[in-house]
Amino acid sequence: MRGQVHLYTGNGKGKTTAAIGLAIRAIGADLKVFFSQFIKNGEYSEIKALKNIENIDIRQYGEEAFINGQPDEKDKAAAREGLVEIKEALNSGKYQVVIIDEIAIALFFDLIDEDDLFEVINHRPENVEVILTGRMAKESLIDRADLVTEMKEVKHYYQQGIMARTGIEK
Amino acid sequence: MRGQVHLYTGNGKGKTTAAIGLAIRAIGADLKVFFSQFIKNGEYSEIKALKNIENIDIRQYGEEAFINGQPDEKDKAAAREGLVEIKEALNSGKYQVVIIDEIAIALFFDLIDEDDLFEVINHRPENVEVILTGRMAKESLIDRADLVTEMKEVKHYYQQGIMARTGIEK
Repeated sequence: MRGQVHLYTGNGKGKTTAAIGLAIRAIGADLKVFFSQFIKNGEYSEIKALKNIENIDIRQYGEEAFINGQPDEKDKAAAREGLVEIKEALNSGKYQVVIIDEIAIALFFDLIDEDDLFEVINHRPENVEVILTGRMAKESLIDRADLVTEMKEVKHYYQQGIMARTGIEK
Repeated sequence: MRGQVHLYTGNGKGKTTAAIGLAIRAIGADLKVFFSQFIKNGEYSEIKALKNIENIDIRQYGEEAFINGQPDEKDKAAAREGLVEIKEALNSGKYQVVIIDEIAIALFFDLIDEDDLFEVINHRPENVEVILTGRMAKESLIDRADLVTEMKEVKHYYQQGIMARTGIEK
C-alpha cells in the first residue's frame, strides 16, 4: 500500500508526542522507524527513552544556538546536511516510517528550501510513510500532506505560570 | 510540583499517539506510567510495543461488543471496574503519570459518571500527572483540565478511501 504523508501542526501541545506515539505503534507492528528532528538538539527525555528501543534510529539536526535566537549559517548547514541524511534514509529500503520532527519550523525559518524537501519526499519509495511535525506550517506544506491534524491550544497551564517539566514537556 | 490534568480531544488523528508519546517521554525521565484505555480492547500495535517497555503498566477496559454498536450493561460494568483500578493506580504511589485513554468517549456514552471520574482525579496525590484523551469531550471535562489541545482534522486520507493500516492506525 502506498505510504502517506502526515502533518501535525498548530500551536497546541502534542505534535512531537504524537510522532513518538506513531513510532511506537509502527515498531509494535514490526516496522522500522527513522526518527529525525530539526531545531532541537540534546538529550530530551523522549530521546533517552527511544534510544533504549529497538528498530528506531534517531538523528538530530539542531544547533543549540538557534534555540535561543535567530538561525545563522551554522544552523542552515546542519539542516541541509539533515535533509541529505533523510533522503538516504527514505531511499535505503531500511525504514517503513520516516519521521521529520519540527520540519515545519525549519521551513518557516528558511533553514531548508521547501522545494528541496518536496523533491526528497516525492521521489521516495512508494511504501514509506512520512510524518512531518511543527508549528507554523505554510499552506504549501498543508497542501502537500495527505493527512493534516491541527493541534489547537484551547488552554495551557503555561498560562498559569507553570514551566516546562522534565518527563512531561522535555 | 503539582501534577496537571491534560486533555487531548477533537476529531483529528493524534490523540492516543500523543498520550503514548507522553508515556515514552515520562519513562525517559525515569517516571513510572499507568496506561489505561477505555472502549478499546485487544492487541493494537502500540499495546504490543508498550508491553516490551519497562516502567509502564497497561490495562484495557473495553468490551469488543461496544466497538461495533451501542454500549450495554457489560460495557458499563467493565468501565466501572476500570475506574476502580484507576483510582487504585492514582493512589498507589507507584505512578507519576496516569493515562486514561478514550475516557472522553466513555463519558460521552455514559459508560461512567463524570462526577465519579472527577472525584477520583480530585482526590489523587498531588504529584500525579493525569492524561485524558478522546473525541467528543464535554464542556465540563474541558473546564476541569489544566491543559486542553483540540486535535482538529484538517484533512485525512480516509477521505481518499484509504483504510486503517496496521502499524499506522492500529
